Amino acid sequence: MKQILLTIAIFLTISGTLCFAQTNQTEIKEDFKPSTYNQPGKEYPQVNSQGYARFRVEAPDAKSINVSLGLGGRGGTDLTKDKDGVWTGTTEGPMDEGFHYYHLTIDGGVFNDPGALNFYGSTRWESGIEIPAHDQDFYALKDVPHGNVQQILFPSPSTSTSRRAFVYTPPTYGKDKKKKYPVLYLQHGWGEDETAWSNQGHANLIMDNLIAEGKIEPFLIVMTYGMTNEVRWGHMNEFKIENFQTVLVDELIPYVDANFSTIADQSHRAMAGLSMGGMETKTITLNKPEVFSYYALLSGGTYSPDDVKDHSNLKLIFLSCGSKERPDGVKNAVVTLKDAGLNAVSYISEGTAHEFLTWRRSLLELAPLLFND
Amino acid sequence: MKQILLTIAIFLTISGTLCFAQTNQTEIKEDFKPSTYNQPGKEYPQVNSQGYARFRVEAPDAKSINVSLGLGGRGGTDLTKDKDGVWTGTTEGPMDEGFHYYHLTIDGGVFNDPGALNFYGSTRWESGIEIPAHDQDFYALKDVPHGNVQQILFPSPSTSTSRRAFVYTPPTYGKDKKKKYPVLYLQHGWGEDETAWSNQGHANLIMDNLIAEGKIEPFLIVMTYGMTNEVRWGHMNEFKIENFQTVLVDELIPYVDANFSTIADQSHRAMAGLSMGGMETKTITLNKPEVFSYYALLSGGTYSPDDVKDHSNLKLIFLSCGSKERPDGVKNAVVTLKDAGLNAVSYISEGTAHEFLTWRRSLLELAPLLFND
Repeated sequence: MKQILLTIAIFLTISGTLCFAQTNQTEIKEDFKPSTYNQPGKEYPQVNSQGYARFRVEAPDAKSINVSLGLGGRGGTDLTKDKDGVWTGTTEGPMDEGFHYYHLTIDGGVFNDPGALNFYGSTRWESGIEIPAHDQDFYALKDVPHGNVQQILFPSPSTSTSRRAFVYTPPTYGKDKKKKYPVLYLQHGWGEDETAWSNQGHANLIMDNLIAEGKIEPFLIVMTYGMTNEVRWGHMNEFKIENFQTVLVDELIPYVDANFSTIADQSHRAMAGLSMGGMETKTITLNKPEVFSYYALLSGGTYSPDDVKDHSNLKLIFLSCGSKERPDGVKNAVVTLKDAGLNAVSYISEGTAHEFLTWRRSLLELAPLLFND
Repeated sequence: MKQILLTIAIFLTISGTLCFAQTNQTEIKEDFKPSTYNQPGKEYPQVNSQGYARFRVEAPDAKSINVSLGLGGRGGTDLTKDKDGVWTGTTEGPMDEGFHYYHLTIDGGVFNDPGALNFYGSTRWESGIEIPAHDQDFYALKDVPHGNVQQILFPSPSTSTSRRAFVYTPPTYGKDKKKKYPVLYLQHGWGEDETAWSNQGHANLIMDNLIAEGKIEPFLIVMTYGMTNEVRWGHMNEFKIENFQTVLVDELIPYVDANFSTIADQSHRAMAGLSMGGMETKTITLNKPEVFSYYALLSGGTYSPDDVKDHSNLKLIFLSCGSKERPDGVKNAVVTLKDAGLNAVSYISEGTAHEFLTWRRSLLELAPLLFND
């Protein structure tokens, strides 16, 4: 457990300093367009073809406005006020492709950008911006059959409430009333919640597109809140898995199996998680080796052969991270697992750090490896 | 059409000035608690047992902060800064029970309260606060069987995209594979979108509770974006219904009937809408008298007997509004409809204006009247 925590700590430390693309570009192209994650009708924030982001905020009487996106450790991007009281600024460098959380600091207080949509991260609803990725097609909304994302409220006696989860059901779901589907349980990271994989991750669109291309057999994805915010940032070693493990294994899985057309056995059940959700995945799969047959840690640590030596029905270990995290750790772990005779696969997302494009791509790579034997 | 617009305009004008409860209370009880719509772990905003709201915002260098909630026309609630740079303030009077949108004006710019959850209204994601209502039990999350809220993406050739809708399916849905359900198409108001009836309206919880109490036969509710933001506020007479009517009648209804277990005929189809969604409901039911059998306008105008004289399969007209809107208009219209031999029902929500508690209560009253003959 300590090793996982250390690994995640290293990932996070690295990611904080490397969320900007490494280029020698100096001339900023004036082809800025509104970010695809802007609120309806909002012109700002904008992004150009090089990955620079430009912000524009109206607050004529403000003393200072800073955007939290900026070269790591250098304090983000300060906006400057023009004569009309409008604050603007452009990031110092091009940003990594994909999704970034951010916020504004206005006169010493933290607020969201009124131009951007909000996404739950860092234990609050943050602003979000998307730098178009060269491979964004795989998570684009296309004219293909679409599955549904179902909000369910499942009874949780252990926490004395009804808890929320989202269930992705593929386009074919319910058409043939006799067909049953395998299930992937997919966890968010620290500071996020059960909305992350649909909103920031586009898990449903990734699945719709893979299914339309005939690249995977359809399965369900279940996403719930990992109770990860029970610890404060920097105190992850105080996190206790028991509460969430009970909710997931004893409450959610039986509810899903009772209320959806699932193949309710270990061989047709996978667990994956990003960052702290990877830590949860590792801990729960080790505590409960009889529940899942596919394990995936996305920027969330590694397994050793010793960890899983008694796991009799283990079909796949998938480990991934961004190239700007600690790819050697992932690759070396997979070599060791393969040497021990296990079916292990590594995936490194090129040019990305500890952010959602790494995890969208990881899901794209993972999905075809699940439930296909 | 002009009359509907005028009616809505009057509703809105009135509601702007009466969102505060009328009391002679002067002493503010110091029993403030965090609003139920706060972001996880946030202490402010708070609400007391009398309905006063208290705000607290950190922004030490700000020059001025105003909260948009306040006695109508008097400019909301100004916050004042203490020696630690923290801004606080309490509304001048107790507020109406139920849900209210609001925002902060910080140094002349419009931002959300970082303590509150966001809700889509006024064509932007606004902050929201809930004043506990004396009858809040009917939309509370209880330990009863829960239906699902399914996000669907349906093909819309007329707008060249996949459009989003939410479908409430009752707890029994899918259990008996042969059972088919009636459908209510339920529209939001101007400035809102397809998320409103679930997020602000708790339509799913209202249904779950009614079903658990055996007060209604289960039905589906379909909520999609009414394209109402195609006109600016104050220019509603420029709104053209054709685009949305095509999406709803020619695209969404056939998709729902093809993909859900519905009773796909007029007698088992209802349309309802709040405010501008009521205007849409009236216009579409008059343009397409063969599609729906139940019509409901919530703070959204009235029908005359002449409007529906050729409607051969009309089973119910339901008209409602808050007591602080124009209840006589609704009541008189229903008297006239009944005199003409129509099955018409009026409902007035006591002590509420043009806000969501009026519409939650309207759904509570409407649901038992649907599909029960």
